[in-house]
Amino acid sequence: MPGPHPPLQVPKNISGLYIASTQEHPSTFPSKKQEQQPLMANLDPEVSGGKDQKSAQREKTDAGEPAVCTCQQKAKAQFLLLLSYFSGDMEVFAQWIKKQFFLLQLLDWVLRGASQVMFVNNPLSGLVIFAGLILQSRWLALNGFVGTLASTISAIILQQSRDAIAAGLYGYNGILVGLLMAVFSNAGDWYWWLLLPNIFMSMMCPIVSSALASINSRWDLPVFTLPFNILVCVHMVATGHYNNYFPQVLFQPRTQLANITWTDVDVAKLFRAVPVGVGQVYGCDNPWTGGIFMIALFISSPITCAHATIGSAVGMVSGLALAAPFEAIYFGLWGYNCVLACIAIGGMFYALTWQVHLLAVTCAFFCAYLGSAITNVMSTFGLPACTWPFCLSALTFLLITTETKTIFKLTLANVAYPERNLRFFWKLRKQERLEREEKSDREKEQEIKCSDKEMLRIEIERERDNVDGLQ
Amino acid sequence: MPGPHPPLQVPKNISGLYIASTQEHPSTFPSKKQEQQPLMANLDPEVSGGKDQKSAQREKTDAGEPAVCTCQQKAKAQFLLLLSYFSGDMEVFAQWIKKQFFLLQLLDWVLRGASQVMFVNNPLSGLVIFAGLILQSRWLALNGFVGTLASTISAIILQQSRDAIAAGLYGYNGILVGLLMAVFSNAGDWYWWLLLPNIFMSMMCPIVSSALASINSRWDLPVFTLPFNILVCVHMVATGHYNNYFPQVLFQPRTQLANITWTDVDVAKLFRAVPVGVGQVYGCDNPWTGGIFMIALFISSPITCAHATIGSAVGMVSGLALAAPFEAIYFGLWGYNCVLACIAIGGMFYALTWQVHLLAVTCAFFCAYLGSAITNVMSTFGLPACTWPFCLSALTFLLITTETKTIFKLTLANVAYPERNLRFFWKLRKQERLEREEKSDREKEQEIKCSDKEMLRIEIERERDNVDGLQ
Amino acid sequence: MPGPHPPLQVPKNISGLYIASTQEHPSTFPSKKQEQQPLMANLDPEVSGGKDQKSAQREKTDAGEPAVCTCQQKAKAQFLLLLSYFSGDMEVFAQWIKKQFFLLQLLDWVLRGASQVMFVNNPLSGLVIFAGLILQSRWLALNGFVGTLASTISAIILQQSRDAIAAGLYGYNGILVGLLMAVFSNAGDWYWWLLLPNIFMSMMCPIVSSALASINSRWDLPVFTLPFNILVCVHMVATGHYNNYFPQVLFQPRTQLANITWTDVDVAKLFRAVPVGVGQVYGCDNPWTGGIFMIALFISSPITCAHATIGSAVGMVSGLALAAPFEAIYFGLWGYNCVLACIAIGGMFYALTWQVHLLAVTCAFFCAYLGSAITNVMSTFGLPACTWPFCLSALTFLLITTETKTIFKLTLANVAYPERNLRFFWKLRKQERLEREEKSDREKEQEIKCSDKEMLRIEIERERDNVDGLQ
Repeated sequence: MPGPHPPLQVPKNISGLYIASTQEHPSTFPSKKQEQQPLMANLDPEVSGGKDQKSAQREKTDAGEPAVCTCQQKAKAQFLLLLSYFSGDMEVFAQWIKKQFFLLQLLDWVLRGASQVMFVNNPLSGLVIFAGLILQSRWLALNGFVGTLASTISAIILQQSRDAIAAGLYGYNGILVGLLMAVFSNAGDWYWWLLLPNIFMSMMCPIVSSALASINSRWDLPVFTLPFNILVCVHMVATGHYNNYFPQVLFQPRTQLANITWTDVDVAKLFRAVPVGVGQVYGCDNPWTGGIFMIALFISSPITCAHATIGSAVGMVSGLALAAPFEAIYFGLWGYNCVLACIAIGGMFYALTWQVHLLAVTCAFFCAYLGSAITNVMSTFGLPACTWPFCLSALTFLLITTETKTIFKLTLANVAYPERNLRFFWKLRKQERLEREEKSDREKEQEIKCSDKEMLRIEIERERDNVDGLQ
Repeated sequence: MPGPHPPLQVPKNISGLYIASTQEHPSTFPSKKQEQQPLMANLDPEVSGGKDQKSAQREKTDAGEPAVCTCQQKAKAQFLLLLSYFSGDMEVFAQWIKKQFFLLQLLDWVLRGASQVMFVNNPLSGLVIFAGLILQSRWLALNGFVGTLASTISAIILQQSRDAIAAGLYGYNGILVGLLMAVFSNAGDWYWWLLLPNIFMSMMCPIVSSALASINSRWDLPVFTLPFNILVCVHMVATGHYNNYFPQVLFQPRTQLANITWTDVDVAKLFRAVPVGVGQVYGCDNPWTGGIFMIALFISSPITCAHATIGSAVGMVSGLALAAPFEAIYFGLWGYNCVLACIAIGGMFYALTWQVHLLAVTCAFFCAYLGSAITNVMSTFGLPACTWPFCLSALTFLLITTETKTIFKLTLANVAYPERNLRFFWKLRKQERLEREEKSDREKEQEIKCSDKEMLRIEIERERDNVDGLQ
Repeated sequence: MPGPHPPLQVPKNISGLYIASTQEHPSTFPSKKQEQQPLMANLDPEVSGGKDQKSAQREKTDAGEPAVCTCQQKAKAQFLLLLSYFSGDMEVFAQWIKKQFFLLQLLDWVLRGASQVMFVNNPLSGLVIFAGLILQSRWLALNGFVGTLASTISAIILQQSRDAIAAGLYGYNGILVGLLMAVFSNAGDWYWWLLLPNIFMSMMCPIVSSALASINSRWDLPVFTLPFNILVCVHMVATGHYNNYFPQVLFQPRTQLANITWTDVDVAKLFRAVPVGVGQVYGCDNPWTGGIFMIALFISSPITCAHATIGSAVGMVSGLALAAPFEAIYFGLWGYNCVLACIAIGGMFYALTWQVHLLAVTCAFFCAYLGSAITNVMSTFGLPACTWPFCLSALTFLLITTETKTIFKLTLANVAYPERNLRFFWKLRKQERLEREEKSDREKEQEIKCSDKEMLRIEIERERDNVDGLQ
């Protein structure tokens, strides 16, 4: 994106159009606004190396020269503008809803909370995700909704940061607590008493989140889904399989060899394990639901969607390599942690370069390994692995320090979505390069000056010699 | 409490009397001294809203006007003075004992250590607690005493902070290690060899305390009873049930449904579970011992005693809600962690407001939930839950950050006992209000001045106009 | 060691000789260089109290007076010089190898990595250790070598600090991962597929190390062998005993009393348990291998070797005291953690005084206790104890804060090997004493001056009086 436009000039290009449109919604974050919009629009040509021509052309446009706008270009511009309203984190919508009445705001927060499980801050994605949940099971969807709501309201009561609540950061643990408590309950669907511990545990989410954030913020780390992991494990192990009121599904350690015959492998089911793995992030085993979740990711951020797919595939392959029973792989149990780990490392908390992409894939493999380990450890206590493997592996990979500049960790305050993070990183890089060039230019000038002086001095001396010679 | 008295004036009221008496014991903490005494005395009237009249009256007294002292008032004053010598943290006694010979000091530290388990820094409470322990079992009391002594001496050898030792902060883990190692030993009472690991583990307490304090101090958190939890668990799991020298009681995971018939519930036993729960903090199942412990708490701080009772009741209710076997509830196993958690949050580390009181009750409920979870997890290793649930839940609730001012966390250096903490908080609040008022007064004055100037300017201009008009 | 020599003077004593020889290898660490060499040479006489005479003699030498050098002294000096090339951390060799080609450097790093398991940074010790491993089993040695290599190369790819890589700090977890994955594999020797997870896990070592260092550095703590513990446990529990590709040795919790008859004890085997305990650090049960490892330690640092022996003995005694089965004691399982803990505390991270020596022995006892506990806990998951007990106990003892000056913790940047650490500590102490003396001297002078002035004043007054009297 070019530098800030002169405010009085009539906007002529896409950026300009956008600025004109956003001026109807005066923003409280003007600095964010300026870099926000053309991210999705201009991404592809710039990635594919067409940057230099493009920016050259833009500089022309900025300089006030007439740009030839064909009909096709106009249509494309309008399409991209439309896209910018629905993709990314829907900043414009967030500004608009701020002036609506409270219940509508709360709904926005709940929907954003639902999508934040996958690091997506987008109410439309949240809506699509709820659609996927209803497709899976209405009882599940209800529990998820109650959990998100209870968690968000609890955060409001505890007077947590309003910005964080509005970004759905106090909802995503709630939806997971609600969903997974329903999934792991052995009392069957529509056991209404379950809503009691569901609401209590969801309301505990902001407390545990806030406490963990106090610790993790020392290393500028997010809390991920740790509150969900802690609270669901507490609920499950506190009641256990042998409980009169809230019995849990029985998990038991493996005590014999799995029967693995490679001729039995069902390749179609293996491929289907990829969307199922994405669906298992929310505890859903329906491949269609998983597909809907992938669409929800694509709406907000194609990079996130790509890494989710890669992560799920890596998990599936790891399962085959570590001699896991085929059933577990088909069921997506090897995928969901890798999905989250791959998204988190691949562009979300690091700026996406190809080194970071490799790191994300490595993290997904490590996460699968760790997942198998944690599954076995937890089964000793009758517990599922939840998303502990993702949390621990992603935290480990975020704590790395290295001397290379191609692995750039964003500060938590700057994290948005992969595309914007990337733009932020490029901007920083460009600025650095400019500064370096400026510095070297100045040094060269200095050198030239010095040599000029030197030349002058030599000339003077020579002339003096001549004069001496003459005398 | 009024501000610092002019030192040369003859003291006339309670505060004055007290200052006169403490001047015989020159204190090393003059700042603490000034706010120390009238806490217990004046608390009730101020809480009940009679603050304004009282402070108005006091201001009169301070100004040197004659205060009419009836006989009754004098008697009351003397009673309150007497009370101030025995309640709270017995600062006067602590100053006096500093000049006595070493063994007497050591005894004071041991007694304070015994009461510090419940966050009470009071040798009299410690004495009452030891009485309760002797009532429970003399062998237990002996082990507790040996543990406290070994732990305190170890801290002296390791040259830990003398102030912390004198406050009993290096004794409370020792007494718990001593008591609980005796309680969980399967070798029967008066098995003298047990004193060997008892002394070794008690002497490790200051080391583990010091190490944990290095970590926790980064978040200004206390170490609670974590050293005790770690060391008793290490001893128990290191030896285990099948050990030739130090066999432990057998703990096993639940593997079948508890038989819960609501008609079988014994209401009297349920009520008795409240004092039993308080007693179980020290591993005692005798309700009378529990009652004696409650008296010990009341001596030092009624708020602490109230929260202990509330916590124990909350634990009992949670046990019923989570379908626990009645026997465990009667035995106080659901209460003791909630007792400690409720005391810690309710006025000890937060200043007591009604919001904090609600938070303390929430923490007690969460602690009960967590307690059930940890009991089940630990039973896999043949271990009891110890006070892990209390430590983890209280630490979580102390790590919360919020934007509300009614939840005020004291820095560790300012923590004393609930009544004094409250006074400290009120003072801070009053000071803030005064500053705010002063500021707004100054602003108003400024405004008045400004408008005066403006008026003057306008007048002058008008006159000038007139003059101009005249000319 | 005396203070820095005047650089222009002709060197006459050992130190001088050394400086002359090292000037051929210009060092990038001049400050380290100066205190490096005579450590090993002068250690014994200084430790045994002959310090004062020695230093007095040295001061003479420095003052330029003629020192009588007999033939014997010369020979001794040359022997010590030779020794300084091979003992300690072989700094001179490290400087020399920096200018050799890459593969030779890599070999140096791998060898240093092998010895860093015992905190020794010495390629010669590393070579001796590999010899010991080959004596134990060639398959084991191969796995260890592959692990170290993979781990070091991974650190280079991840662009970790080159100094740390050159010190072998990214190799020691790799060798342990390689060795112990081979030891605990149930698939038998020469199962080549094992190299795949071996290489993957070894390459994860620098990532986990870097992440843990980010956390531990806040308390200036090393990561010890935590990455190895984490990664080997992850691999073992991820695959488990019942795995088709990578089955693990079966570990199970104890479920009955051990048969301990004191008449059955084999004293010779008990004594042999000491070197076996040292060998078990690398997973070797051959007493000769253990003996070779002790020689490797002695080459670099006799203090380290002594503490290793003490630690192993303490572990053996603890095993007897806690009623462990004799077989486990003979097998060295009670020793290896204590070996590492005793080395770490006894002179490596603390400067060695007799208080620190006692602390190291205490730490070894605690480590043995903790070792038994962790063995029992881990066996629930089918895992061995690895070196968790050492890591946890040593970290605990390094976190202690105390008011005594005789327990001096070195900052991580200053840690070298016990002998040099000691020298560093003595130098600091001497400097402090000198400063104190200087200060008191100045104060005395001030006093004398003052009293002189006073005397003068008195005299003047007296004379004036006399004059007055005369008048």
